[in-house]
Amino acid sequence: MQQRSETTRAHILDAARKLFARSGYESASVDAICAEAGVSKGAFYHHFPTKQAIFLQLLENWLSGLETQLETAREGTENVAQVFVNMTALIPGIFRDADQRLPMFLEFWAQASRDKTVWDATISPYRRYRDFFAELIEQGVAEGTFREVNPQIAAEMIVSLAVGTLLQGLLDARGTDWQQTAIESMQIMMTGLAKEQK
Amino acid sequence: MQQRSETTRAHILDAARKLFARSGYESASVDAICAEAGVSKGAFYHHFPTKQAIFLQLLENWLSGLETQLETAREGTENVAQVFVNMTALIPGIFRDADQRLPMFLEFWAQASRDKTVWDATISPYRRYRDFFAELIEQGVAEGTFREVNPQIAAEMIVSLAVGTLLQGLLDARGTDWQQTAIESMQIMMTGLAKEQK
Repeated sequence: MQQRSETTRAHILDAARKLFARSGYESASVDAICAEAGVSKGAFYHHFPTKQAIFLQLLENWLSGLETQLETAREGTENVAQVFVNMTALIPGIFRDADQRLPMFLEFWAQASRDKTVWDATISPYRRYRDFFAELIEQGVAEGTFREVNPQIAAEMIVSLAVGTLLQGLLDARGTDWQQTAIESMQIMMTGLAKEQK
Repeated sequence: MQQRSETTRAHILDAARKLFARSGYESASVDAICAEAGVSKGAFYHHFPTKQAIFLQLLENWLSGLETQLETAREGTENVAQVFVNMTALIPGIFRDADQRLPMFLEFWAQASRDKTVWDATISPYRRYRDFFAELIEQGVAEGTFREVNPQIAAEMIVSLAVGTLLQGLLDARGTDWQQTAIESMQIMMTGLAKEQK
């Protein structure tokens, strides 16, 4: 029974993700999610108290996956420059994963500006990303890869660049080759942070 | 009469901007906008066919103001480095102007991913900004301020950085001093683009 319950939960999450992407968070009703997932309303409410709870779970799954990938890019590297090279390889996957989720996140960013629960779930993770990069920059300064920049500010810059590129890439997908832009932007930024060669 | 009509129009726009910021675009009804502006519904529909038309007008006013500021930063400068120094001075005003508009824009970005009219009005202006910066970078490469970077990609990077910083700055206003971050990010980016000194 435990396994069947887990499968049901996964079906509901998957159905909700599809419907949110297709018709928007507001328009996707619990009834429609149940129909798409092939479950009863009772089963739905057994797993999730509200539609918002599903959104928060989808967000959590996405963000924790992203954090695992970032941590993995860092493992076994000899210096910070290598970490950033490894991160470049993550870019296509990040664009792919974000694509279906964008409209949903935009709606929640809008709600986050008015609702503390939504804010905590959608905005505060960016602080964790900034802390992750600040630590990395600090390491780079210590090992002599980077100039004596303020690690916190450089980290905010990296996250801003990532958020801005992803957002434009999803909203204006045909405007340019955004993955290539992401890679070359990272290189320009690395040059800007790099310690001058004596 | 012409002057009175213009005043009414300005009152409606101002009331809508306030209500959109306070309660969100969806929740702000035409009735509420009329009450806030102190005008009749007849007067409202004389000026704007729909609530969406007001949003598009507010957006247009904001974006054209921003473009005028960018063009002004470029006037009478001797080189591209000077243009970017002038732009730094625009940052506080850009944050101030964007503050009240953020929730509204997030909602429209979400709609833009599904509605072509909204897309044209909200997303395509970013292409104009990218073209503006691409021209500037091209000039910088020609005059020897910048390395031989791809101007289009460097321009996409600048706009991504601006969008990402503004977005985080508005959603997580107390997370850091975002204006300072914007200024220092611009300096790091300029170092990344600069031609190496021989």
